[in-house]
Amino acid sequence: MSTYNPTADLEIAHAMADAARSACLPHFRTGPAVENKLSGGFDPVTVADRASEQAMRAVLAERAPADGILGEEFGETAGGNGRRWVLDPIDGTRAFIAGLPSWTMLIALEYRARPVIGLIDQPHIGERFIGWPGGAEYRRGGQARALKTRPTRRLGDAIMSSTDAFLFEAAVEAEAFERVRRSVRLCRFGFDAYAYAMLAAGGVDLVIESGLQIYDVQAFIPVVEGAGGVVTNWSGGDASEGGQVVAAATPELLDEALRLLAPAAL
Amino acid sequence: MSTYNPTADLEIAHAMADAARSACLPHFRTGPAVENKLSGGFDPVTVADRASEQAMRAVLAERAPADGILGEEFGETAGGNGRRWVLDPIDGTRAFIAGLPSWTMLIALEYRARPVIGLIDQPHIGERFIGWPGGAEYRRGGQARALKTRPTRRLGDAIMSSTDAFLFEAAVEAEAFERVRRSVRLCRFGFDAYAYAMLAAGGVDLVIESGLQIYDVQAFIPVVEGAGGVVTNWSGGDASEGGQVVAAATPELLDEALRLLAPAAL
Repeated sequence: MSTYNPTADLEIAHAMADAARSACLPHFRTGPAVENKLSGGFDPVTVADRASEQAMRAVLAERAPADGILGEEFGETAGGNGRRWVLDPIDGTRAFIAGLPSWTMLIALEYRARPVIGLIDQPHIGERFIGWPGGAEYRRGGQARALKTRPTRRLGDAIMSSTDAFLFEAAVEAEAFERVRRSVRLCRFGFDAYAYAMLAAGGVDLVIESGLQIYDVQAFIPVVEGAGGVVTNWSGGDASEGGQVVAAATPELLDEALRLLAPAAL
Repeated sequence: MSTYNPTADLEIAHAMADAARSACLPHFRTGPAVENKLSGGFDPVTVADRASEQAMRAVLAERAPADGILGEEFGETAGGNGRRWVLDPIDGTRAFIAGLPSWTMLIALEYRARPVIGLIDQPHIGERFIGWPGGAEYRRGGQARALKTRPTRRLGDAIMSSTDAFLFEAAVEAEAFERVRRSVRLCRFGFDAYAYAMLAAGGVDLVIESGLQIYDVQAFIPVVEGAGGVVTNWSGGDASEGGQVVAAATPELLDEALRLLAPAAL
Protein backbone atom coordinates (compact mmCIF):
# COMPACT_ATOMS: atom_id res chain seq x y z
CA MET A 1 0.00 0.00 0.00
CA SER A 2 1.31 3.42 -0.83
CA THR A 3 -1.87 5.32 -0.11
CA TYR A 4 -4.05 5.74 2.92
CA ASN A 5 -7.34 3.82 2.99
CA PRO A 6 -9.40 4.62 6.08
CA THR A 7 -11.49 1.44 6.13
CA ALA A 8 -8.64 -1.00 5.49
CA ASP A 9 -6.22 0.84 7.75
CA LEU A 10 -8.67 0.98 10.66
CA GLU A 11 -9.04 -2.79 10.30
CA ILE A 12 -5.27 -3.23 10.48
CA ALA A 13 -5.12 -1.02 13.59
CA HIS A 14 -7.85 -3.07 15.30
CA ALA A 15 -6.03 -6.31 14.43
CA MET A 16 -2.79 -4.92 15.88
CA ALA A 17 -4.55 -3.87 19.08
CA ASP A 18 -6.29 -7.25 19.44
CA ALA A 19 -2.96 -9.03 19.10
CA ALA A 20 -1.20 -6.69 21.51
CA ARG A 21 -3.96 -7.12 24.11
CA SER A 22 -3.50 -10.87 24.09
CA ALA A 23 0.27 -10.48 24.32
CA CYS A 24 0.52 -8.06 27.22
CA LEU A 25 -2.50 -8.76 29.40
CA PRO A 26 -1.18 -12.06 30.82
CA HIS A 27 1.71 -10.06 32.36
CA PHE A 28 -0.49 -7.47 34.12
CA ARG A 29 -0.47 -7.78 37.93
CA THR A 30 1.94 -10.70 37.86
CA GLY A 31 4.89 -8.67 39.16
CA PRO A 32 6.85 -8.71 35.87
CA ALA A 33 10.58 -8.02 36.15
CA VAL A 34 11.31 -4.35 35.56
CA GLU A 35 14.41 -3.15 33.71
CA ASN A 36 15.60 0.44 33.74
CA LYS A 37 16.36 1.88 30.30
CA LEU A 38 18.13 4.97 31.70
CA SER A 39 21.48 5.11 33.43
CA GLY A 40 20.80 8.56 34.94
CA GLY A 41 17.14 8.19 35.82
CA PHE A 42 14.29 5.67 35.83
CA ASP A 43 12.57 4.67 32.59
CA PRO A 44 11.07 1.26 33.22
CA VAL A 45 10.40 -1.43 30.65
CA THR A 46 8.94 -4.92 31.14
CA VAL A 47 8.47 -8.09 29.16
CA ALA A 48 4.91 -6.86 28.54
CA ASP A 49 6.08 -3.74 26.67
CA ARG A 50 8.19 -5.90 24.37
CA ALA A 51 5.55 -8.60 23.87
CA SER A 52 2.96 -5.96 23.02
CA GLU A 53 5.15 -4.27 20.37
CA GLN A 54 6.22 -7.62 18.89
CA ALA A 55 2.57 -8.61 18.51
CA MET A 56 1.79 -5.32 16.72
CA ARG A 57 4.80 -5.76 14.43
CA ALA A 58 3.79 -9.34 13.57
CA VAL A 59 0.41 -8.10 12.29
CA LEU A 60 2.12 -5.44 10.18
CA ALA A 61 4.60 -7.97 8.77
CA GLU A 62 1.67 -9.92 7.45
CA ARG A 63 -0.80 -7.22 6.43
CA ALA A 64 1.32 -4.17 5.51
CA PRO A 65 4.93 -5.34 5.08
CA ALA A 66 6.03 -2.29 3.06
CA ASP A 67 5.00 0.21 5.75
CA GLY A 68 7.54 1.89 8.00
CA ILE A 69 7.38 1.39 11.79
CA LEU A 70 8.60 3.47 14.71
CA GLY A 71 8.14 1.70 18.03
CA GLU A 72 9.21 2.76 21.51
CA GLU A 73 10.91 -0.54 22.29
CA PHE A 74 12.32 -1.73 18.94
CA GLY A 75 13.00 1.57 17.18
CA GLU A 76 12.70 2.41 13.51
CA THR A 77 11.98 0.00 10.66
CA ALA A 78 12.28 1.94 7.42
CA GLY A 79 9.42 1.89 4.90
CA GLY A 80 9.35 3.66 1.59
CA ASN A 81 5.73 4.37 0.78
CA GLY A 82 5.01 7.47 2.88
CA ARG A 83 3.25 5.35 5.55
CA ARG A 84 4.62 4.81 9.05
CA TRP A 85 3.05 3.14 12.08
CA VAL A 86 4.05 4.82 15.35
CA LEU A 87 3.70 2.49 18.35
CA ASP A 88 3.81 2.84 22.10
CA PRO A 89 3.22 -0.75 23.21
CA ILE A 90 2.56 0.34 26.81
CA ASP A 91 2.03 4.01 27.55
CA GLY A 92 2.16 4.36 31.33
CA THR A 93 4.57 1.54 32.17
CA ARG A 94 4.80 2.97 35.71
CA ALA A 95 1.04 2.50 36.15
CA PHE A 96 1.30 -1.00 34.61
CA ILE A 97 3.97 -1.96 37.16
CA ALA A 98 1.81 -0.60 40.00
CA GLY A 99 -1.22 -2.62 38.84
CA LEU A 100 -3.20 0.55 38.11
CA PRO A 101 -5.50 0.28 35.07
CA SER A 102 -4.55 3.67 33.58
CA TRP A 103 -1.90 2.44 31.11
CA THR A 104 -2.82 2.04 27.46
CA MET A 105 -1.46 0.74 24.17
CA LEU A 106 -1.04 3.40 21.46
CA ILE A 107 -1.12 2.85 17.72
CA ALA A 108 -0.95 5.57 15.07
CA LEU A 109 -0.69 5.55 11.31
CA GLU A 110 1.29 8.49 9.99
CA TYR A 111 0.73 9.29 6.32
CA ARG A 112 2.75 12.03 4.64
CA ALA A 113 4.06 13.10 8.07
CA ARG A 114 0.60 13.50 9.73
CA PRO A 115 -1.12 11.01 12.06
CA VAL A 116 -4.30 9.98 10.24
CA ILE A 117 -5.42 7.06 12.40
CA GLY A 118 -5.04 6.87 16.15
CA LEU A 119 -5.98 4.06 18.56
CA ILE A 120 -5.88 4.03 22.36
CA ASP A 121 -6.60 0.67 24.01
CA GLN A 122 -6.94 -0.26 27.69
CA PRO A 123 -6.84 -4.05 27.72
CA HIS A 124 -7.68 -4.70 31.38
CA ILE A 125 -10.89 -2.65 31.23
CA GLY A 126 -11.47 -3.77 27.66
CA GLU A 127 -11.89 -0.27 26.24
CA ARG A 128 -10.78 1.07 22.88
CA PHE A 129 -10.84 4.63 21.52
CA ILE A 130 -10.12 5.12 17.83
CA GLY A 131 -10.04 8.24 15.66
CA TRP A 132 -9.63 9.14 11.99
CA PRO A 133 -10.16 12.31 9.91
CA GLY A 134 -13.75 13.28 10.64
CA GLY A 135 -14.70 10.78 13.34
CA ALA A 136 -13.89 8.94 16.54
CA GLU A 137 -15.41 5.92 18.24
CA TYR A 138 -15.49 4.10 21.59
CA ARG A 139 -15.66 0.32 21.65
CA ARG A 140 -16.18 -2.05 24.54
CA GLY A 141 -17.55 -5.58 24.65
CA GLY A 142 -19.01 -5.53 21.14
CA GLN A 143 -20.69 -2.13 21.64
CA ALA A 144 -19.59 1.00 19.79
CA ARG A 145 -20.54 4.66 20.09
CA ALA A 146 -19.31 7.93 18.61
CA LEU A 147 -16.92 10.05 20.70
CA LYS A 148 -17.66 13.75 21.11
CA THR A 149 -15.87 16.37 23.20
CA ARG A 150 -17.89 18.65 25.50
CA PRO A 151 -18.70 22.23 24.47
CA THR A 152 -16.67 23.73 27.35
CA ARG A 153 -15.21 27.12 26.35
CA ARG A 154 -14.00 28.68 29.62
CA LEU A 155 -11.19 27.57 31.93
CA GLY A 156 -13.45 28.21 34.93
CA ASP A 157 -15.81 25.47 33.70
CA ALA A 158 -13.10 23.05 32.62
CA ILE A 159 -12.09 19.66 34.01
CA MET A 160 -8.37 19.25 33.48
CA SER A 161 -6.02 16.28 33.64
CA SER A 162 -2.29 15.67 33.46
CA THR A 163 -0.17 12.62 34.12
CA ASP A 164 1.89 14.04 36.93
CA ALA A 165 2.29 17.41 38.65
CA PHE A 166 6.00 16.60 38.74
CA LEU A 167 6.21 16.20 34.95
CA PHE A 168 7.30 19.81 34.52
CA GLU A 169 11.02 19.90 35.21
CA ALA A 170 11.67 23.53 34.27
CA ALA A 171 10.38 26.08 36.79
CA VAL A 172 8.88 28.23 34.05
CA GLU A 173 6.87 25.25 32.77
CA ALA A 174 5.71 24.29 36.25
CA GLU A 175 4.58 27.87 36.88
CA ALA A 176 2.63 28.04 33.61
CA PHE A 177 0.94 24.72 34.37
CA GLU A 178 0.10 25.95 37.86
CA ARG A 179 -1.51 29.13 36.43
CA VAL A 180 -3.87 26.95 34.40
CA ARG A 181 -4.49 24.50 37.24
CA ARG A 182 -5.60 27.34 39.52
CA SER A 183 -7.98 28.61 36.82
CA VAL A 184 -9.91 25.39 36.13
CA ARG A 185 -12.86 23.80 37.92
CA LEU A 186 -10.99 20.66 38.90
CA CYS A 187 -7.82 18.80 38.00
CA ARG A 188 -7.06 15.07 38.15
CA PHE A 189 -3.67 13.41 37.76
CA GLY A 190 -2.34 9.99 36.85
CA PHE A 191 -3.83 8.86 33.56
CA ASP A 192 -1.16 9.14 30.83
CA ALA A 193 -2.79 8.85 27.36
CA TYR A 194 -6.08 7.67 28.89
CA ALA A 195 -6.74 11.31 29.80
CA TYR A 196 -6.83 12.24 26.11
CA ALA A 197 -9.27 9.39 25.49
CA MET A 198 -11.50 10.85 28.21
CA LEU A 199 -11.22 14.26 26.56
CA ALA A 200 -12.52 12.68 23.35
CA ALA A 201 -15.26 10.96 25.37
CA GLY A 202 -16.50 14.22 26.90
CA GLY A 203 -15.34 13.65 30.48
CA VAL A 204 -12.21 15.79 30.60
CA ASP A 205 -11.98 19.18 28.84
CA LEU A 206 -8.27 19.96 28.91
CA VAL A 207 -5.00 17.97 29.09
CA ILE A 208 -1.64 19.70 29.47
CA GLU A 209 1.70 17.89 29.43
CA SER A 210 5.34 18.36 28.54
CA GLY A 211 8.32 16.24 27.58
CA LEU A 212 6.26 13.85 25.44
CA GLN A 213 7.79 11.67 22.75
CA ILE A 214 6.44 11.23 19.23
CA TYR A 215 5.05 7.79 20.14
CA ASP A 216 3.25 9.30 23.13
CA VAL A 217 1.27 11.81 21.05
CA GLN A 218 0.62 10.45 17.54
CA ALA A 219 -2.19 8.10 18.56
CA PHE A 220 -4.26 10.54 20.58
CA ILE A 221 -4.23 13.37 18.01
CA PRO A 222 -6.66 11.67 15.57
CA VAL A 223 -8.83 10.50 18.51
CA VAL A 224 -9.13 13.99 20.02
CA GLU A 225 -9.52 15.73 16.65
CA GLY A 226 -11.97 13.13 15.35
CA ALA A 227 -14.13 13.79 18.43
CA GLY A 228 -14.15 17.54 17.78
CA GLY A 229 -11.26 18.62 20.00
CA VAL A 230 -8.01 20.39 19.23
CA VAL A 231 -4.34 19.54 19.95
CA THR A 232 -1.37 21.90 19.66
CA ASN A 233 1.94 22.61 21.32
CA TRP A 234 2.16 25.42 23.91
CA SER A 235 2.66 27.98 21.11
CA GLY A 236 -0.47 26.86 19.27
CA GLY A 237 1.58 25.03 16.60
CA ASP A 238 1.89 21.41 15.49
CA ALA A 239 2.26 18.92 18.37
CA SER A 240 2.65 15.73 16.35
CA GLU A 241 6.34 15.36 17.18
CA GLY A 242 5.70 15.54 20.94
CA GLY A 243 7.21 17.99 23.44
CA GLN A 244 4.85 20.45 25.16
CA VAL A 245 1.28 19.46 24.39
CA VAL A 246 -2.14 20.93 25.12
CA ALA A 247 -5.39 19.24 24.07
CA ALA A 248 -8.75 20.95 24.52
CA ALA A 249 -12.42 20.21 24.00
CA THR A 250 -12.96 23.40 21.96
CA PRO A 251 -10.81 25.99 20.13
CA GLU A 252 -12.05 28.69 22.55
CA LEU A 253 -10.84 26.70 25.58
CA LEU A 254 -7.53 26.06 23.85
CA ASP A 255 -7.08 29.83 23.35
CA GLU A 256 -7.68 30.50 27.05
CA ALA A 257 -5.12 27.85 28.03
CA LEU A 258 -2.56 29.04 25.48
CA ARG A 259 -2.75 32.56 26.89
CA LEU A 260 -1.43 31.19 30.20
CA LEU A 261 0.99 28.65 28.70
CA ALA A 262 2.61 30.69 25.92
CA PRO A 263 5.17 32.44 28.17
CA ALA A 264 6.65 28.98 28.90
CA ALA A 265 6.58 27.71 25.32
CA LEU A 266 9.92 26.33 24.18
CA MET B 1 -28.06 -8.99 64.93
CA SER B 2 -26.05 -7.76 67.87
CA THR B 3 -22.92 -9.73 67.10
CA TYR B 4 -20.54 -9.89 64.19
CA ASN B 5 -20.81 -12.90 61.91
CA PRO B 6 -18.16 -12.89 59.19
CA THR B 7 -19.98 -15.12 56.70
CA ALA B 8 -23.38 -13.49 57.00
CA ASP B 9 -21.96 -9.97 57.15
CA LEU B 10 -19.78 -10.49 54.06
CA GLU B 11 -22.91 -11.61 52.23
CA ILE B 12 -24.71 -8.43 53.27
CA ALA B 13 -21.77 -6.32 52.11
CA HIS B 14 -21.75 -8.04 48.69
CA ALA B 15 -25.51 -7.52 48.35
CA MET B 16 -25.10 -3.82 49.18
CA ALA B 17 -22.31 -3.44 46.62
CA ASP B 18 -24.32 -5.27 43.94
CA ALA B 19 -27.27 -2.96 44.51
CA ALA B 20 -25.11 0.16 44.54
CA ARG B 21 -23.38 -0.87 41.29
CA SER B 22 -26.71 -1.12 39.52
CA ALA B 23 -27.80 2.21 40.96
CA CYS B 24 -24.79 4.35 40.09
CA LEU B 25 -23.34 2.83 36.93
CA PRO B 26 -26.10 4.13 34.60
CA HIS B 27 -25.02 7.67 35.57
CA PHE B 28 -21.30 7.19 34.74
CA ARG B 29 -20.13 9.14 31.67
CA THR B 30 -23.57 10.64 31.10
CA GLY B 31 -22.56 14.13 32.25
CA PRO B 32 -24.63 14.06 35.49
CA ALA B 33 -25.43 17.43 37.03
CA VAL B 34 -22.86 18.34 39.69
CA GLU B 35 -23.79 20.17 42.88
CA ASN B 36 -21.26 21.77 45.18
CA LYS B 37 -21.65 20.85 48.87
CA LEU B 38 -19.24 23.58 50.06
CA SER B 39 -19.81 27.33 50.06
CA GLY B 40 -16.10 28.11 50.42
CA GLY B 41 -14.61 25.44 48.18
CA PHE B 42 -15.56 22.63 45.82
CA ASP B 43 -16.95 19.35 47.16
CA PRO B 44 -18.95 17.84 44.33
CA VAL B 45 -21.91 15.50 44.64
CA THR B 46 -24.05 13.96 41.90
CA VAL B 47 -27.27 11.99 41.58
CA ALA B 48 -25.04 8.90 41.35
CA ASP B 49 -23.59 9.43 44.86
CA ARG B 50 -27.11 9.64 46.28
CA ALA B 51 -28.50 6.72 44.27
CA SER B 52 -25.58 4.54 45.34
CA GLU B 53 -26.03 5.28 49.06
CA GLN B 54 -29.82 4.86 48.84
CA ALA B 55 -29.33 1.42 47.25
CA MET B 56 -26.94 0.39 50.04
CA ARG B 57 -29.37 1.63 52.70
CA ALA B 58 -32.30 -0.25 51.09
CA VAL B 59 -30.39 -3.54 51.46
CA LEU B 60 -29.64 -2.76 55.12
CA ALA B 61 -33.27 -1.84 55.80
CA GLU B 62 -34.24 -5.32 54.70
CA ARG B 63 -31.36 -7.46 55.96
CA ALA B 64 -30.00 -5.65 59.03
CA PRO B 65 -32.59 -3.06 60.12
CA ALA B 66 -31.23 -2.70 63.68
CA ASP B 67 -27.71 -1.72 62.55
CA GLY B 68 -26.48 1.86 62.64
CA ILE B 69 -25.42 3.61 59.42
CA LEU B 70 -23.07 6.50 58.73
CA GLY B 71 -23.12 7.55 55.08
CA GLU B 72 -21.36 10.44 53.38
CA GLU B 73 -24.50 11.73 51.68
CA PHE B 74 -27.32 10.94 54.15
CA GLY B 75 -25.50 11.15 57.48
CA GLU B 76 -26.04 9.12 60.63
CA THR B 77 -28.85 6.64 61.28
CA ALA B 78 -28.56 5.50 64.88
CA GLY B 79 -28.37 1.80 65.71
CA GLY B 80 -28.16 0.28 69.16
CA ASN B 81 -26.38 -3.03 68.81
CA GLY B 82 -22.70 -2.01 68.52
CA ARG B 83 -22.79 -2.45 64.74
CA ARG B 84 -22.49 0.44 62.28
CA TRP B 85 -22.10 0.42 58.48
CA VAL B 86 -19.88 3.24 57.24
CA LEU B 87 -20.55 4.13 53.59
CA ASP B 88 -18.92 6.24 50.94
CA PRO B 89 -21.26 5.73 47.99
CA ILE B 90 -18.74 7.23 45.55
CA ASP B 91 -15.17 7.79 46.70
CA GLY B 92 -13.52 9.92 44.05
CA THR B 93 -16.52 11.91 42.85
CA ARG B 94 -14.09 14.19 40.95
CA ALA B 95 -12.82 11.19 38.96
CA PHE B 96 -16.42 10.03 38.42
CA ILE B 97 -17.34 13.42 36.96
CA ALA B 98 -14.27 13.33 34.68
CA GLY B 99 -15.19 9.85 33.38
CA LEU B 100 -12.01 8.35 34.86
CA PRO B 101 -12.44 4.78 36.19
CA SER B 102 -10.56 5.37 39.46
CA TRP B 103 -13.58 6.09 41.68
CA THR B 104 -14.92 3.35 43.94
CA MET B 105 -17.79 2.54 46.29
CA LEU B 106 -16.74 1.95 49.90
CA ILE B 107 -18.58 -0.18 52.45
CA ALA B 108 -17.36 -0.96 55.97
CA LEU B 109 -18.88 -2.71 58.95
CA GLU B 110 -17.71 -1.24 62.22
CA TYR B 111 -18.19 -3.49 65.24
CA ARG B 112 -17.34 -2.25 68.71
CA ALA B 113 -15.67 0.82 67.14
CA ARG B 114 -13.35 -1.12 64.80
CA PRO B 115 -13.85 -1.77 61.05
CA VAL B 116 -14.14 -5.56 60.72
CA ILE B 117 -15.33 -5.85 57.12
CA GLY B 118 -14.23 -3.61 54.29
CA LEU B 119 -15.31 -3.61 50.65
CA ILE B 120 -13.94 -1.54 47.74
CA ASP B 121 -15.85 -1.83 44.46
CA GLN B 122 -15.09 -0.35 41.02
CA PRO B 123 -18.31 -0.89 39.05
CA HIS B 124 -17.15 0.20 35.58
CA ILE B 125 -14.21 -2.20 35.58
CA GLY B 126 -16.24 -4.75 37.50
CA GLU B 127 -13.68 -5.25 40.26
CA ARG B 128 -14.26 -5.86 43.95
CA PHE B 129 -11.77 -6.04 46.84
CA ILE B 130 -13.03 -7.28 50.20
CA GLY B 131 -11.28 -7.83 53.51
CA TRP B 132 -12.04 -9.24 56.94
CA PRO B 133 -9.98 -10.25 59.97
CA GLY B 134 -7.46 -12.70 58.58
CA GLY B 135 -8.14 -12.50 54.85
CA ALA B 136 -8.83 -10.47 51.76
CA GLU B 137 -10.10 -11.37 48.32
CA TYR B 138 -10.33 -9.98 44.77
CA ARG B 139 -13.41 -10.72 42.67
CA ARG B 140 -14.10 -10.03 39.03
CA GLY B 141 -16.46 -11.71 36.60
CA GLY B 142 -17.16 -14.74 38.76
CA GLN B 143 -13.46 -15.33 39.52
CA ALA B 144 -11.97 -14.86 42.99
CA ARG B 145 -8.42 -14.90 44.31
CA ALA B 146 -6.73 -14.09 47.61
CA LEU B 147 -5.13 -10.66 48.03
CA LYS B 148 -1.58 -10.45 49.37
CA THR B 149 0.69 -7.43 49.80
CA ARG B 150 4.26 -7.53 48.46
CA PRO B 151 7.20 -8.16 50.83
CA THR B 152 8.73 -4.70 50.15
CA ARG B 153 10.59 -3.44 53.23
CA ARG B 154 12.64 -0.47 51.99
CA LEU B 155 11.46 2.90 50.70
CA GLY B 156 14.02 2.69 47.89
CA ASP B 157 12.22 -0.39 46.52
CA ALA B 158 8.71 0.91 47.09
CA ILE B 159 5.99 1.93 44.63
CA MET B 160 3.96 4.70 46.22
CA SER B 161 0.61 6.25 45.43
CA SER B 162 -1.47 9.17 46.64
CA THR B 163 -4.63 10.79 45.34
CA ASP B 164 -3.18 14.22 44.71
CA ALA B 165 0.11 16.02 45.27
CA PHE B 166 -2.02 19.04 46.17
CA LEU B 167 -3.85 17.16 48.94
CA PHE B 168 -1.41 18.43 51.55
CA GLU B 169 -2.58 21.94 52.44
CA ALA B 170 -0.17 22.60 55.31
CA ALA B 171 3.43 23.25 54.24
CA VAL B 172 4.80 20.93 56.91
CA GLU B 173 2.63 18.08 55.58
CA ALA B 174 3.60 18.76 51.97
CA GLU B 175 7.29 18.74 52.95
CA ALA B 176 6.98 15.44 54.81
CA PHE B 177 5.17 13.86 51.87
CA GLU B 178 7.84 15.19 49.52
CA ARG B 179 10.59 13.62 51.68
CA VAL B 180 8.95 10.22 51.22
CA ARG B 181 8.20 10.77 47.52
CA ARG B 182 11.87 11.50 46.85
CA SER B 183 12.87 8.31 48.68
CA VAL B 184 10.71 5.80 46.81
CA ARG B 185 11.23 4.00 43.50
CA LEU B 186 8.22 5.54 41.82
CA CYS B 187 5.06 7.42 42.74
CA ARG B 188 1.70 7.53 40.97
CA PHE B 189 -1.20 9.89 41.65
CA GLY B 190 -4.93 9.96 41.04
CA PHE B 191 -6.52 6.82 42.44
CA ASP B 192 -8.37 7.67 45.67
CA ALA B 193 -9.26 4.45 47.56
CA TYR B 194 -8.37 2.30 44.56
CA ALA B 195 -4.71 2.82 45.49
CA TYR B 196 -5.29 0.98 48.79
CA ALA B 197 -6.94 -1.87 46.86
CA MET B 198 -3.80 -2.07 44.70
CA LEU B 199 -1.68 -2.12 47.85
CA ALA B 200 -3.68 -5.15 49.02
CA ALA B 201 -3.26 -6.68 45.53
CA GLY B 202 0.54 -6.38 45.60
CA GLY B 203 0.95 -3.64 42.99
CA VAL B 204 1.51 -0.60 45.19
CA ASP B 205 3.60 -0.75 48.39
CA LEU B 206 2.79 2.52 50.13
CA VAL B 207 -0.10 5.00 50.20
CA ILE B 208 0.16 8.31 52.05
CA GLU B 209 -2.70 10.79 52.38
CA SER B 210 -4.11 13.45 54.66
CA GLY B 211 -7.43 15.10 55.42
CA LEU B 212 -9.40 11.86 55.05
CA GLN B 213 -12.86 11.38 56.53
CA ILE B 214 -14.02 8.34 58.50
CA TYR B 215 -16.00 7.07 55.49
CA ASP B 216 -12.87 7.37 53.30
CA VAL B 217 -10.78 5.05 55.48
CA GLN B 218 -12.97 2.45 57.20
CA ALA B 219 -13.43 0.23 54.14
CA PHE B 220 -9.80 -0.05 53.10
CA ILE B 221 -8.43 -0.87 56.55
CA PRO B 222 -9.78 -4.47 56.63
CA VAL B 223 -8.80 -4.95 52.96
CA VAL B 224 -5.20 -3.84 53.50
CA GLU B 225 -4.85 -5.63 56.87
CA GLY B 226 -6.53 -8.79 55.56
CA ALA B 227 -3.96 -8.88 52.76
CA GLY B 228 -1.05 -8.61 55.22
CA GLY B 229 -0.48 -4.85 55.15
CA VAL B 230 -0.60 -2.23 57.88
CA VAL B 231 -2.48 1.06 58.26
CA THR B 232 -1.80 3.79 60.83
CA ASN B 233 -1.89 7.56 61.15
CA TRP B 234 1.32 9.56 60.70
CA SER B 235 2.22 8.94 64.38
CA GLY B 236 1.85 5.19 64.05
CA GLY B 237 -1.49 5.19 65.89
CA ASP B 238 -5.07 4.27 64.98
CA ALA B 239 -6.21 5.67 61.61
CA SER B 240 -9.79 4.41 61.64
CA GLU B 241 -11.28 7.87 62.19
CA GLY B 242 -9.43 9.32 59.17
CA GLY B 243 -7.08 12.30 59.09
CA GLN B 244 -3.44 11.63 58.19
CA VAL B 245 -3.12 8.07 56.91
CA VAL B 246 -0.26 5.83 55.85
CA ALA B 247 -0.76 2.28 54.54
CA ALA B 248 2.18 -0.01 53.84
CA ALA B 249 2.82 -3.48 52.48
CA THR B 250 4.95 -4.46 55.51
CA PRO B 251 5.57 -3.17 59.06
CA GLU B 252 9.23 -2.51 58.13
CA LEU B 253 8.23 -0.26 55.24
CA LEU B 254 5.71 1.51 57.48
CA ASP B 255 8.49 2.25 59.98
CA GLU B 256 10.70 3.79 57.27
CA ALA B 257 7.82 6.00 56.10
CA LEU B 258 6.84 7.01 59.64
CA ARG B 259 10.38 8.19 60.33
CA LEU B 260 9.94 10.79 57.56
CA LEU B 261 6.29 11.61 58.28
CA ALA B 262 6.30 11.85 62.08
CA PRO B 263 7.60 15.47 62.22
CA ALA B 264 4.40 16.50 60.41
CA ALA B 265 2.02 14.37 62.49
CA LEU B 266 -0.92 16.35 63.85
